[in-house]
Amino acid sequence: MKNYEMICDNLQVTKDGILCFAGQRTDILAKQYGTPLYLMDEDRIRRCCRIYSTAMKQTFGDKGRTLYASKAACFKRMYSIMQEEDIFIDVVSCGEIHTAVRAGYKMQNAYFHSNNKTDDDIRFALQNKVGHFVVDNEEELTAIDRIAKEVSAKPKILLRITPGIDTHTYEAIATGQVDSKFGSALETGQAEHITALALSLSHISLCGFHCHIGSQLFDSNVFFRAADCMLRFIADIRDRYGYVAEQLDLGGGYGVRYTNEDPAIDLADNIRQVGQVIHRLTKELSLPMPMILLEPGRSLVADAGLTLYTVGTVKRIPGYKNYVSVDGGMTDNPRFALYRAVHTFVAANRMNEECNMTADVVGRCCESGDILGQKVSLPETVCRGDLIAGLTTGAYTYSMASNYNRIPRPAVVMLSGGQTYVAVRRESLDDLIRLDE
Amino acid sequence: MKNYEMICDNLQVTKDGILCFAGQRTDILAKQYGTPLYLMDEDRIRRCCRIYSTAMKQTFGDKGRTLYASKAACFKRMYSIMQEEDIFIDVVSCGEIHTAVRAGYKMQNAYFHSNNKTDDDIRFALQNKVGHFVVDNEEELTAIDRIAKEVSAKPKILLRITPGIDTHTYEAIATGQVDSKFGSALETGQAEHITALALSLSHISLCGFHCHIGSQLFDSNVFFRAADCMLRFIADIRDRYGYVAEQLDLGGGYGVRYTNEDPAIDLADNIRQVGQVIHRLTKELSLPMPMILLEPGRSLVADAGLTLYTVGTVKRIPGYKNYVSVDGGMTDNPRFALYRAVHTFVAANRMNEECNMTADVVGRCCESGDILGQKVSLPETVCRGDLIAGLTTGAYTYSMASNYNRIPRPAVVMLSGGQTYVAVRRESLDDLIRLDE
Repeated sequence: MKNYEMICDNLQVTKDGILCFAGQRTDILAKQYGTPLYLMDEDRIRRCCRIYSTAMKQTFGDKGRTLYASKAACFKRMYSIMQEEDIFIDVVSCGEIHTAVRAGYKMQNAYFHSNNKTDDDIRFALQNKVGHFVVDNEEELTAIDRIAKEVSAKPKILLRITPGIDTHTYEAIATGQVDSKFGSALETGQAEHITALALSLSHISLCGFHCHIGSQLFDSNVFFRAADCMLRFIADIRDRYGYVAEQLDLGGGYGVRYTNEDPAIDLADNIRQVGQVIHRLTKELSLPMPMILLEPGRSLVADAGLTLYTVGTVKRIPGYKNYVSVDGGMTDNPRFALYRAVHTFVAANRMNEECNMTADVVGRCCESGDILGQKVSLPETVCRGDLIAGLTTGAYTYSMASNYNRIPRPAVVMLSGGQTYVAVRRESLDDLIRLDE
Repeated sequence: MKNYEMICDNLQVTKDGILCFAGQRTDILAKQYGTPLYLMDEDRIRRCCRIYSTAMKQTFGDKGRTLYASKAACFKRMYSIMQEEDIFIDVVSCGEIHTAVRAGYKMQNAYFHSNNKTDDDIRFALQNKVGHFVVDNEEELTAIDRIAKEVSAKPKILLRITPGIDTHTYEAIATGQVDSKFGSALETGQAEHITALALSLSHISLCGFHCHIGSQLFDSNVFFRAADCMLRFIADIRDRYGYVAEQLDLGGGYGVRYTNEDPAIDLADNIRQVGQVIHRLTKELSLPMPMILLEPGRSLVADAGLTLYTVGTVKRIPGYKNYVSVDGGMTDNPRFALYRAVHTFVAANRMNEECNMTADVVGRCCESGDILGQKVSLPETVCRGDLIAGLTTGAYTYSMASNYNRIPRPAVVMLSGGQTYVAVRRESLDDLIRLDE
C-alpha cells in the first residue's frame, strides 16, 4: 500500500489495491448497492460505545452516563444500537424523538436539548415520556412549567449553562463562549437567575446543569476548565440557594481523525483525567459526587462511516487545477461547503498506485461551492467509473443531507461481522415528489 | 410604516402593523398553515416570466428563448407555471427531470445541464425526450454519443464553454472563470478541442454553445463581455471548422434585491443592452443571428418568496449580543450558513413599531452556525409567539432545505389573486422515518 496511511483501523487494502472497510471490499459493496453510498461499520460503533461506557464506569462507577448526541447520525437503527449498548441519547427535536420512539428506544433514557423548544415540542416530549429536558432559556423554562401543569406532569430538567470558554475551534461549531445562542451565561449572572427561577417553579424538577463547549476538540484542558467552571457554579448555587445538583452534563466535543494530521485521542485516558479533576474539585468544594454525563456524537460514529462515490469526469485545466467530479457532493456531505471541513479522500480501487496528481474532488451539483475536498492526492490514472472513498464520514453527513438539485439521498448500509444490511433505503425519484401537490 | 422600506412591491403593511404579502395578511397565513412556512407569490412569478419573455421577444424576435433554471425552486407546480408561461426549463438531474415529467411539462423544451452526468442520467434523459443536453466535458460527450448510438437516438446538444470571466461575486457562486469545475475553457484551447470532438461524433447533433458566468450579478458589463467572448468563439469555430452555431445560451445570473442596499435591475433594459451588443457583434463578425437563450432562476422566483417563522426565544446577553430564535433556520434556508448571504428580516406583526433592537436571527438547530441573519433591526418588544418574515426567499431555500436535526421541511403555499393553495405539503414526522428500515 503506497501513499496511504491509516486514519482508522477499520480500513485495509487488498493485494490488488482495493480499499476494504470493516473487512469488506468497497468495489463489491459499490456494485451491490450503487453509489453514492454511505457505509457504516456497526462493530466500530459498538466498540466506540464500549470505550466510553467502560471508561465512564471505571472513572465514575455508577455515577457515569454516556449519551449519544443523535443529531450526528439519526435513523432508527442507530437508536436500536444505542439501546443495545446501554447508551442514553440526546435528542434535539420532535423528529429525533419520533425516530427514537419508533425504533423502540426507552425514552426515559433520552435528554431533550435544543435552544428553541416550541410549545408543541414540549407537549410532544411530555407525551412521549422523554426522561429529561435540557432547558436552554427562561421562555422555555416557563413554557415547560406551564404545559407540565396543564398535563399534570413534573418533568426532570437540566439547565444549559454557558461557561464562557472559547475553544478556538471552527466558529460555527464553538458553543461554550458567552456570546452564544445557547444557554444562560455564567459571566452575566443569567445562569444564576435562571437557576433561581427554576427553583421557584412547581411543575419542574431541577436535576442539575449542562454545558457544551464545542466540537472537534483535541485539547482535554477545555474539559478540565468546563468541569472547574461548572462545579464551582454548583457549589455557589448550593451556598446561595441550598440546592445541590445531582447531575452535571459536560456535553460532547471530542475530536476525531479526519486526516492523518489530526491526533488520535485516547478517550479512556482523557475521561480518566477529567475524572481526576472532578474528584479533586468535589472534595475541595465539599460537594457530593454528581452523576457525570458525557454526550459524544461525532466520536461515537464518525470513523464508523465511509462514503463511496463513482467518478464521472476528470478535468485537467492546464496552468490552473484538476477536478475530479463524483456522483455525490454537498448534498450528501455539506461539511466542506459549510465549514471548509477537511476529509480524506482516496481512490478506492487504485490503492496500490502512486498518488501523483493533485485535484479538487467536487460534486455533481450545479454550484461552484459544491466541493468535497481540495488539493486531494490521487493517482493520475483516475478516470470515469473509478471509485472514490471519503473517510470518517459517519457524523454530520447523512443527517445534514439535502435534496438540492433534486438529488436523492444515498442509502445507509451497515456492515457487521462480514454481513451487510440496509439501515436507510436510498431515496427514489418518486420519494422526491411525494410532497408535491 | 416605520423603519421599513420596500424590497419588492408585493409587500405591504396594514394599518395595524401586519405585513402583507401578495395582498394577504401574514398573521392569518401563519395561523392557517403553521410556521415555518414558505409563501410564494404566483402572480409575481408570472409577472417576472413576462418581463423576460417580452424583453426577449422585443430584443431578439423569435430568436429569443427564456429558460427557468429550476434548481432555484423545484417542485411540480413550478413546472406547470413555467409551461403555462411558455418558459423553457433548465434541469440538472434525473430528479428535476422526473419532477418536470410528472408535472406534465413538455420535455422537448428542457435543457439538461450538470457538470457530471452519469450513464444512467443520460439514458434517463433520452428516455424522457429531454430536448437538449448541455454537455460539460469530453467524458460526458463521448458517453452521450455512445449511449445515443445504443438507443438509436441523436440528441441535440450545446457545449458548455468557460469564457474566463471573473465576476467578483461570492466565490461559491462564481462560475465563469477558467478555474472552474464547469465547462471547457476558451483560454486553454479545451473549448475548441471539445467542439472539434463534437463535430466528429455521429450520434449527437451540435446546436451551439452555453456559458454561465455567475450568480447574483448587477453589472451588465459582464454579460456584454460574455456575449463578446462567445460570439468571437463562434466566429472562430466557423472560420476553422465551417460550423455555424444556431444557439447561444448566455446562462443566468441577474441579481435580486435581498436588502435595500441591493440595486433594482431594470431587466428589460439590460436585455435590450445585451441585445445591442449581440446585434452589433453578429454584424461585425458576419454571423447569422443565433437563437439567444437566457437562464434566469433567482430573478424569476426570489422576490416571489417569503418565509414566515415564529419566535421562540429572545436572548439578551448584556455586553455581548441579542439573539432572536425562530422555529426554522439553516434547515429551511442554509444561505447564511453556506455563503453568509444576507436576507432582510422583519417582525411581521410589529411593522409599525420602531426597530430599536439589534439582534441575530438564529434558527432552532443544535449548531452555532445556524444563523439566518446578523445585526437585524427589530422592535425590542419582539417576544415568544411573534412572527418573523424573511424576505426574498423564493430561490435556493426550499430547494436546498435539509432535515438536519430531523426537522421536517415546511410547506410551500402559493398565493394568487387573493387565493392560497398548498404547492408542497409540510413534511410529517412519519415522512422523516419512511426510509429507515
